[in-house]
Amino acid sequence: MRGVIMHSPGEVRVQDRDDPQIVEPTDAIIKVTAACVCGSDLWPYRGAQDVEDQPMGHEYVGVVEQVGDSVTTVKPGDFVVGSFMTSDGTCEICQAGYQSRCVDTTPMGGIGTQAQLARIPQADGTLVATPEHPDEDLIPSLLAASDVLGTGWFAADAAAAGPGKTVAVVGDGAVGLMGILAAQQMGAERIIAMSRHESRQKLAREFGATDIVTERGDDGVAKIKELTGGLGAHSVIEAVGTQEAMLQAIKSTRPGGHVGFVGVSHGVELPGDLLFGSTVHLHGGPAPVRRYLPELIQLILDRKIEPGKVFDKRLPLEEAAEAYRLMDQREAIKVLLEV
Amino acid sequence: MRGVIMHSPGEVRVQDRDDPQIVEPTDAIIKVTAACVCGSDLWPYRGAQDVEDQPMGHEYVGVVEQVGDSVTTVKPGDFVVGSFMTSDGTCEICQAGYQSRCVDTTPMGGIGTQAQLARIPQADGTLVATPEHPDEDLIPSLLAASDVLGTGWFAADAAAAGPGKTVAVVGDGAVGLMGILAAQQMGAERIIAMSRHESRQKLAREFGATDIVTERGDDGVAKIKELTGGLGAHSVIEAVGTQEAMLQAIKSTRPGGHVGFVGVSHGVELPGDLLFGSTVHLHGGPAPVRRYLPELIQLILDRKIEPGKVFDKRLPLEEAAEAYRLMDQREAIKVLLEV
Repeated sequence: MRGVIMHSPGEVRVQDRDDPQIVEPTDAIIKVTAACVCGSDLWPYRGAQDVEDQPMGHEYVGVVEQVGDSVTTVKPGDFVVGSFMTSDGTCEICQAGYQSRCVDTTPMGGIGTQAQLARIPQADGTLVATPEHPDEDLIPSLLAASDVLGTGWFAADAAAAGPGKTVAVVGDGAVGLMGILAAQQMGAERIIAMSRHESRQKLAREFGATDIVTERGDDGVAKIKELTGGLGAHSVIEAVGTQEAMLQAIKSTRPGGHVGFVGVSHGVELPGDLLFGSTVHLHGGPAPVRRYLPELIQLILDRKIEPGKVFDKRLPLEEAAEAYRLMDQREAIKVLLEV
Repeated sequence: MRGVIMHSPGEVRVQDRDDPQIVEPTDAIIKVTAACVCGSDLWPYRGAQDVEDQPMGHEYVGVVEQVGDSVTTVKPGDFVVGSFMTSDGTCEICQAGYQSRCVDTTPMGGIGTQAQLARIPQADGTLVATPEHPDEDLIPSLLAASDVLGTGWFAADAAAAGPGKTVAVVGDGAVGLMGILAAQQMGAERIIAMSRHESRQKLAREFGATDIVTERGDDGVAKIKELTGGLGAHSVIEAVGTQEAMLQAIKSTRPGGHVGFVGVSHGVELPGDLLFGSTVHLHGGPAPVRRYLPELIQLILDRKIEPGKVFDKRLPLEEAAEAYRLMDQREAIKVLLEV
C-alpha cells in the first residue's frame, strides 16, 4: 500500500509500505476513505518534536476490510469513524468517558492513517459504524469528527460552554474553529473568536462566533475583559498549546469560570500563583473523542452541523507533502487527503 | 485594643492598636470571641513571604458591636461567623458562588482578626449570624468554619468527592484534615490520608480516613496507584502549596479525575505536558468559604460534625507568639486564640 512517512522535520514522502495485518483478534483493518493533516503533525514537521521515519496521520474514516475473531460491533463493508486514540471501551477509564486514556490505548499516530489501509486495534471500542454508507458530501464532516471536531467539542465541554455563557476561543486553527461550532451547538449566548486572519474570521462567524478579537496576549485579555463587564469570559477554549495561549486563556476567564485546553502543550510552565489566584477550573488534554462520536455522527448525518467546512483544501494522498506545506505556511486551514 | 502584629519574619508581638471604626456604611465592628493562627500565616513567619509591621489573622467568630447605616442582615449582639475574604454577596461572581473573588473583596488578613476588635467590610455579604449565641463548646468548630473547614470543604467539592469515590488527601495540616472530614460528609467511599505524623494520622482517622499512606512524592503516587487498581484516585485534595505536593496530587489522580488544590501556592510551576497528559480536572484557589457557611454552621449547631477537634491547643491572645512558635515547629496542628 501507499502511505505517508515523515523522514525528518519537513521531509514528508508518500511511499510503499507493507499492508497491515490483523495482529490481535480485537483488530480491524480498514480501507481509508479520507485522512488529513493535523495541527499536531506540524510540531515534528517544524522540528519542535523529534521525528525519524515516522508513519503519519491519526484521523480517518474508511470501510472495514477485515476483522479479528473477537470483533463483534463492526464487520467488513461497514463505513466507520474512529478516534485518534484507540480504546477498549470496557475499562473503568473508558466507562467514565475518558477513552483517550484507556488503560490499553494505542495512539493511531504511531500506526499512521495517511495511508491506503490502517490497522485499528480494539476495533469494538474504537470504531463507530454509520447505519449505511454516507453521502459523498458528508465525508469531510465525518472525517472532522475523528479528531478536530471531537477535540473542539471536548474543549467546549471542558470549558462548560452552555446557555447564558460567554465563550472565548484562543486559537483560530481547525480545532479552535470546531470549538466555536461546539459552543454554538451547546447554546452559548456569545462566542468571541480571537483571530487575526480574515479567512478564519469568516469561517468563525459561519460556525457561530458573535465577536472577533484581533488582539493577543495581555491586550487580548484586556479586550475580553472589556467585552464582559470587566469580569472575563465564563468559558475559554485554548486550542494552541503555547505558553502565551495558555496564559491568555486563563487570564481571560472569570473567577469560577472554566478553561478547556486542547492545544498539545509545548514548553508550557504554569505559574502556581497565577493558577491559584485565578480560581478557574482547568481541564483538558487529549480529547476523549470516542465519547462524543455517536452524537457527532448523528448531527452530521442529520445535516445539523457541517464541520467539514473546515477543510479548505483537498489533495490526493500522493500529494501529502504539499498538504503539509500548505498547512505549515498557513495557506490552508486544514487539508483533506483523498485516498 | 490589643492585637497581633508581625514586625518581621518570626517576630510576633501582641500590642496596643487603635480601636477600629466604621469607615463605610456597609461595615460592621465585631468583638472577636476567638481567632487562630493559619498555616498561611507561617509563610511570612518563616520568611517565605515579605512582611513588615503587619496586623495578623483572618479567621474569626465574634459578636457584633456596631454596624454601619446600610447594614441590614446583622445587628449588634448577634454572634457571627465570617470568611477570610469579604464579599458583597451581590456581584455576578458572588452570585456564581465565588465570594472569595468578589469584585469588591477585602482580605481580612490585611485588617487582622488576631485582635480584640475587627472591622468587617461588606458585613451583609460577609457575615452569617447564628440563630442564637452558640454553646461555648461549639466555638472552636464555628471558628474552624471561618477558614480551615470552609477551605477543606471547597477542596473536597473541587475534587468532586462523593459517593463511590476514592479520595486522596495530600497534606496533613488542619486544611487537609478538614478535607477528610468534608469528603466523609460528602459520602466518599474511601479516603486515603497521606501523613507521616502519628497524632495527625489519628485525627485523620477520627475525621473519616480509611487508609493512611506515609510515602511522599513519587513513592506516594505509586502507593495510591497500588491502592486503586493502578488507576489513581478519583479525587485528590492538595492542601500544602509546594511543587512536590502539587505534582503528587496531579500524578495520584486518575484520567478524568479531579484535583482540588487549596494550599497557597509557593514556587509552583506546573509543566504543561504533565497537565495535558494527565487529563485531570484542576480547580482551586482561595476558597469561597462564604458559599458554604450556612450549611457548615448548621451541621455544627446540629452537632453532626466537630471540626473544632482540629485545635489541639488553646492560648490567650496575649500568648500569640507562642501559638506561632508551636505551629511553626509542628508541635501543634492548630492553635485557637481566646480573646
